[in-house]
Amino acid sequence: MAEWDEQEIFPVETLRKAAQLGFGGIYVKPDVGGSGLSRLDTSIIFEALSTGCVSTTAYLSIHNMCAWMIDTFGNEEQRLKFCPSLCSMEKLASYCLTEPGSGSDAASLLTSAKKRGDVYILNGSKAFISGGGDADLYVVMCRTGGAGPKGISCLVLEKGAPGLTFGKKEKKVGWNSQPTRAVIFEDCAVPVSNRLGEEGQGFNIAMQGLNGGRINIASCSLGAAHASVLLSREHLNVRKQFGELLATNQYLQFQLAQMATRLVAARLMVRNAARALQEQRHDAVALCSMAKLFATDECFAICNQALQMHGGYGYLKDYAVQQFMRDIRVHQILEGTNEIMKMIIARTLLQA
Amino acid sequence: MAEWDEQEIFPVETLRKAAQLGFGGIYVKPDVGGSGLSRLDTSIIFEALSTGCVSTTAYLSIHNMCAWMIDTFGNEEQRLKFCPSLCSMEKLASYCLTEPGSGSDAASLLTSAKKRGDVYILNGSKAFISGGGDADLYVVMCRTGGAGPKGISCLVLEKGAPGLTFGKKEKKVGWNSQPTRAVIFEDCAVPVSNRLGEEGQGFNIAMQGLNGGRINIASCSLGAAHASVLLSREHLNVRKQFGELLATNQYLQFQLAQMATRLVAARLMVRNAARALQEQRHDAVALCSMAKLFATDECFAICNQALQMHGGYGYLKDYAVQQFMRDIRVHQILEGTNEIMKMIIARTLLQA
Amino acid sequence: MAEWDEQEIFPVETLRKAAQLGFGGIYVKPDVGGSGLSRLDTSIIFEALSTGCVSTTAYLSIHNMCAWMIDTFGNEEQRLKFCPSLCSMEKLASYCLTEPGSGSDAASLLTSAKKRGDVYILNGSKAFISGGGDADLYVVMCRTGGAGPKGISCLVLEKGAPGLTFGKKEKKVGWNSQPTRAVIFEDCAVPVSNRLGEEGQGFNIAMQGLNGGRINIASCSLGAAHASVLLSREHLNVRKQFGELLATNQYLQFQLAQMATRLVAARLMVRNAARALQEQRHDAVALCSMAKLFATDECFAICNQALQMHGGYGYLKDYAVQQFMRDIRVHQILEGTNEIMKMIIARTLLQA
Amino acid sequence: MAEWDEQEIFPVETLRKAAQLGFGGIYVKPDVGGSGLSRLDTSIIFEALSTGCVSTTAYLSIHNMCAWMIDTFGNEEQRLKFCPSLCSMEKLASYCLTEPGSGSDAASLLTSAKKRGDVYILNGSKAFISGGGDADLYVVMCRTGGAGPKGISCLVLEKGAPGLTFGKKEKKVGWNSQPTRAVIFEDCAVPVSNRLGEEGQGFNIAMQGLNGGRINIASCSLGAAHASVLLSREHLNVRKQFGELLATNQYLQFQLAQMATRLVAARLMVRNAARALQEQRHDAVALCSMAKLFATDECFAICNQALQMHGGYGYLKDYAVQQFMRDIRVHQILEGTNEIMKMIIARTLLQA
Repeated sequence: MAEWDEQEIFPVETLRKAAQLGFGGIYVKPDVGGSGLSRLDTSIIFEALSTGCVSTTAYLSIHNMCAWMIDTFGNEEQRLKFCPSLCSMEKLASYCLTEPGSGSDAASLLTSAKKRGDVYILNGSKAFISGGGDADLYVVMCRTGGAGPKGISCLVLEKGAPGLTFGKKEKKVGWNSQPTRAVIFEDCAVPVSNRLGEEGQGFNIAMQGLNGGRINIASCSLGAAHASVLLSREHLNVRKQFGELLATNQYLQFQLAQMATRLVAARLMVRNAARALQEQRHDAVALCSMAKLFATDECFAICNQALQMHGGYGYLKDYAVQQFMRDIRVHQILEGTNEIMKMIIARTLLQA
Repeated sequence: MAEWDEQEIFPVETLRKAAQLGFGGIYVKPDVGGSGLSRLDTSIIFEALSTGCVSTTAYLSIHNMCAWMIDTFGNEEQRLKFCPSLCSMEKLASYCLTEPGSGSDAASLLTSAKKRGDVYILNGSKAFISGGGDADLYVVMCRTGGAGPKGISCLVLEKGAPGLTFGKKEKKVGWNSQPTRAVIFEDCAVPVSNRLGEEGQGFNIAMQGLNGGRINIASCSLGAAHASVLLSREHLNVRKQFGELLATNQYLQFQLAQMATRLVAARLMVRNAARALQEQRHDAVALCSMAKLFATDECFAICNQALQMHGGYGYLKDYAVQQFMRDIRVHQILEGTNEIMKMIIARTLLQA
Repeated sequence: MAEWDEQEIFPVETLRKAAQLGFGGIYVKPDVGGSGLSRLDTSIIFEALSTGCVSTTAYLSIHNMCAWMIDTFGNEEQRLKFCPSLCSMEKLASYCLTEPGSGSDAASLLTSAKKRGDVYILNGSKAFISGGGDADLYVVMCRTGGAGPKGISCLVLEKGAPGLTFGKKEKKVGWNSQPTRAVIFEDCAVPVSNRLGEEGQGFNIAMQGLNGGRINIASCSLGAAHASVLLSREHLNVRKQFGELLATNQYLQFQLAQMATRLVAARLMVRNAARALQEQRHDAVALCSMAKLFATDECFAICNQALQMHGGYGYLKDYAVQQFMRDIRVHQILEGTNEIMKMIIARTLLQA
Repeated sequence: MAEWDEQEIFPVETLRKAAQLGFGGIYVKPDVGGSGLSRLDTSIIFEALSTGCVSTTAYLSIHNMCAWMIDTFGNEEQRLKFCPSLCSMEKLASYCLTEPGSGSDAASLLTSAKKRGDVYILNGSKAFISGGGDADLYVVMCRTGGAGPKGISCLVLEKGAPGLTFGKKEKKVGWNSQPTRAVIFEDCAVPVSNRLGEEGQGFNIAMQGLNGGRINIASCSLGAAHASVLLSREHLNVRKQFGELLATNQYLQFQLAQMATRLVAARLMVRNAARALQEQRHDAVALCSMAKLFATDECFAICNQALQMHGGYGYLKDYAVQQFMRDIRVHQILEGTNEIMKMIIARTLLQA
C-alpha cells in the first residue's frame, strides 16, 4: 500500500485478481457473475482487505456498489449486459452523484439529461469521482424532470462516449491508489435503454446504493483501525524508552485498551447495520447512518492515536500508521458527510 | 424514583413484588426458585427496569449476583438453604468485597477468617456495601490463607451474627434508594458449612460474579441513557426558544443524534458481552470489561448532555434527567473502576 | 460548605462578614460603600472564595452584579438610596431576568410594567431566581414598551411590596446554600423613581450586567477546579493501591497533568476577559462569552475527573470533590447557557 | 506553501530574505547580529509566519534555537565565530539531540565523544534531524562522560567534517519544505574549542534550548490554527448547501465558535509561557510544557475540524486546510512528545 500511495498507482491487475476470488460483485446475484453474499459478509471482506490497503479496498467497494445497483434496479437486458464484466472487473465502474455545487445536498443536482428520441443528452459535471477517467462505466444521477429528488434519473454511461471528458487528476491527502477526477458531460448522448429503473427513480436508487456504500466505507475504516491497533501493540512490545519496553508504560497500555474497546464498538455498529440492511429492517437507514458516523469518527481517532504512539516514526511514510490515518480521513466526509449522517439520524428520531 | 431518592427510601416491598415476577434470581436455576434466564435476558431486564429507577435496579442486580454465586458455587445444601428466600427476596443479599484500603485491588484484602473448629472467626471491615445493614445475607470475601488471591475464601454470613455491626449510612451523590454502609466484623463466627467452594477459591468466585455484575451495572447505565434520550426528545418537541420549538434547532438535533448513536453502540457492547459470558467464550472477561468501560462512560456523557439540553430545568430535582446523571455517575467507579477495566483489557491485549 | 449544602443553609451572617471585608460591592464605586476594585480583582476574589464554597460565592457574585448595575445605571438618588446597604449586605439583591418561557431568549420576556401615574404596575413571573424570597431588592427586567429588546426597562423592587410573592423553594442538584424561587408579580406597584436608566434601556443594562456576571460565574468554576486539583493531588499522595501510592500511577499522573493544564488555560481565559471588560475593549463581549464557555466546560470536566480519581470516596458527601462537581454543573447553564455563548461568539466571528 | 510541500523545496533563499528582516536570530543579542527581541515577540513572529508556511517557519524556529544556544552558552570567540552567519542565515543550523533508540529519553543518548588531544572523536547517530544534510552547523549532544544526563556535552560540528554523513531524506506526512535526515558520525573529529559550556553541561543546554523550542513550535501551531479558522469562516461565507450559505448553518456556526475559543485559549497559554520564560520564572518549565501540550493538541483539533468543514475540498491539496493539518501533526510529537510534556507537568505538580 505504501508503494501504491507514493507512486499513485491504481492497481487494476490486482483488482482483477481480487475479482477472480469473487470480490468484483460480492453482493451481486450469481446468475450474472456475482458472489451472492450478504451485506455482513461484504462488510467482513472489506474490513479484512482494508488492513492491506484502505484506498484500493474503498474503490473496490464503490465498484461493488455500482454493480449492485445495476443488478438490483436494472432490467434483465441491462443486468446481462453490464454485470458479468463488472463482476470480473474486466470493466470498472464509477458512481457519479456529487457535483461541484452540491456536495451533501444530492437532491439539488444540476446535471441535465434531455430526452431526444432514443437517447438522453447529458450536460453538466460531477466532482470527486473515484475511478473517474480510468473507469469504463459511469453510473450517473442526472435531472430528467423538475427540481428536487423526484426529477432525478439514473443512467449508465460508457467510457468513450462523445462529449464525455475528465478533469485533472486530483492531488489528495490519501486515497492515492485510486484516481479522482471531475467527470464532465457536454452534449453527451446516452441510450435511453441505459436508464436504470424509471424516470424519476434515480434519487431513490442513489440513496439505496449509499446505504450499502456507507456500511462498506465504515468497514474500510474498521480495517485501518484494526491494523493500527495491531501495529501499535507490536510497537509497544518492541520499542524501549527509559530502559523499559513501551508496553510496560501504563498510560500507553490504557490508551491501547481504549483504542481496542472503541474498535470493538465500531465493529458491532457496522455489523449490526449490515444485518439490518440485509433484512431490510425499517430502521436500516438510521442504523447505516449511525454506523458510518460512529465507525469513521472513532476509527480515525484510533489511527491518529496509533500514529502518536509511534512517536517520530509515526510521521514517516516508511511506517503504515500514517497512511491509515491519511486514507480514512476522507471517510468522515464522503458518501454523505458525518454532519449529513447526524441530520438523517435526527430526522428519524424526531419523527419517531 | 424521585421520591425514593429524596427521602432515601429502600423500597423493599417493591423489590419483593419484582421478585414475584421472577426478578429476584433472574439467572439462578429454576430448581431453587430462580428464573433460569440468560445473561442477555438479564441485561435487557435491568436496562428496562433502570428507566424507572437506576438505584433500585442496581441494588437488585447486586442481589441477583449474590444469588447466582450461591447457586453456582454452593453445594446442594447451601443452594437449597439460601437460594429460595433470595429468589423471592424474602431475604436480601449484599456483596462484601471492597475494603477501606483496597478499592480496586481486591486481591490484597485484609479481612481475616481464622478457622476454629467448625466456625471461621471473622475480623476486619468492608466499605461501600450496597444494602449493608438492611440485607440479611452477606457474601463475604475474606483471607483464610496467605497473601494474594489464592488466600481468599468466600463465606455467607447471616445478619444477626454476634460481632457483625455496621457503619453509619453514607450520604451519596445518588443511589439514594439503597443504603450503603461499612460492614464490620469483630470476632464474628461463621459456620464452616457456609463457605462457598473450597478454601482459596474465593477470589475466583468474586471475579466470576463480577463479570456478570459488570454487565448488569452497564445495563443499568443503558436504561438511564435510554430514558434520558427520550426525555430530551420530548423536551425538544415541547419547549420553545426564540419563537421556535427547540426541535428545530440544528445544533440540538445533532446532539440528540450523537446521543442516540452512542447509546446504540453502548447497547451493542453490553449485549455482545452478555452473549459471550453466557457462552463462556474465552474473550468474555475482556468483553465484559470493555462493555462496562464503554457503556458507563458513554451513558454518563449522554445523561449529562440530556441535563444540559433541559437548561435550568435540568438542574431541578423535579426533572428526572439530573437523577439519571447522579445515579449512574458511580457506575464508572464500582465493580472495578473504569481504570481497572482498562488494566484488564490492556493485559489481555498485550498477552495475546 | 458541606453543612450548608446538606442543610440548605443560606449563610447570611457569613455573607455580611464578607461584606465587612469589602466583598458586598467589589466593583462598586467607593462613594456609596463599594470597594472600587477592577474586574480582574473581582475575578480573583471570587475564584479564591469559591474554593471554600461555590454556591455561596456564586450568590455573592450575583448580588455584586446587581449592586454594580444600580451604581452604574442609577442616578445619584438611587445610588445613595440602594448601594450602601447592598455593599454592607444589610440588604441582599436578586437579579430577575429569566422567565419560565424564555430561558435563553431574554429579549422576548413577557413580564409587563404598565405606567400608571408615578408607579409601574408589574404583572408576570420570573424563574430560577437566586436569593428569591430571601433577598430584599429585586432588579427586575420588564416590558414597558413593544416587543423585542427595545421595549424592556429595568426596575428595582423592594421586598414587601404588595403583589410580590414567591414560588416554592426549588430542590436542586447543587447550589444548595442559596435559595432559588420563582418571583411572581400580581398588580405589584413599583415607583417610577425606581427605574434604572430610561425606558427601553433595560435590555442593555441586563446584558452589560451579564458580561461581568459571566466572568464572575466562570471565576467560581475556577475556584472549584483549583480546589479539586489540590484535593486530587493530596489523594494521590496519601492513598495506596497495589501496595504503592496512587501518585506513582502514571495514568493518574498524566490525568492530573491534563487537569492542571486545562485549569491554567481556563484561568487565563477568564482573566484576559476580565481585563478586556475593564478596559471596555470592543471584543470584550466575545471574550467574556468565550471565557464563560471555556472555563465552565473545562472546570466541570476537571471536577468530574477529580471525583473519578477519588474512587468510591468521590461519590460520598463526606468528600468535597462531589460537591464541587454538583455545584458548578449549573454554571454551564445559567447567565446564558453555553449554547448561547457559542451563538454570541459565532455572530461576532461571522460579522467580523 | 503548497508548492514547497508538493515539490519538497527547502526555500533557503526565502529564509535568507527573512533573515534580512531580523528573523535569523530573533532572540539572539544584537552585538552578534541578532534582533534582541523577547520570547513573546518571537512567539508572535512565528505565529504570524506560520500562517504562510508552517513547515518553513518550524525549521526557522529550530535554527533560531540553535543560534540562541550558541549566543547564550558559547564563549565570546564562539559567539563571534558562529552567530553572525547564523543570524544572516548565510549558514543554517540543525539541532541534534534525538537518537534512533532514545526518542523521548534524551538523557540516555549513546553518541560518544572521546577526547583525543584538542579534538573530540564523535561516533554514533542522530535521527529525525531537521535540516540534516543541508544545514551547515550541527549542535550535537553527545556523551563525554558516564551514563545519565551529567555525562552529556554539547558540540558544534561544521558540515564537511570527515566522518560526517547523512541518511536518506525521509518521506513524511508533512513538514515537506524542510529536509529530515539521520546524521551519522564515524570517527568524526570536532575541535574541543567548539564545545559549548563545560563538559557535562550539555543536557542542561539542550533542555534550556527546548523550553524556548516548545514555545516556538506551539506558536507555529497557533499560526496554522488561526489561518484555518479564517479559511473556514471564508468557506462558510461563500459555499452554499440546501440553497443557503453554510454560514447560516447553526451546527457549523457553533463549531466555528468552539474553534475560535480554543484558539484564543491556546494563544494565551503560549504567550503566558513566553513571558514566564523571558522573566525566568520558577514555573517557566512547567508553563512551557503546558503551552506545548495544550496548543499543539488543540490546534491540531482545530485544523482537523477545518478540514471537515471544507467537505470534499478539504481533502484536496489545492486547499490549504489539509496542509495545515498535516504539517502540525508532528508538533504533538517532537521537541518532547506530548506524553513527555505530561510527565514533566505531573512531576512538577507532585513535587510542589
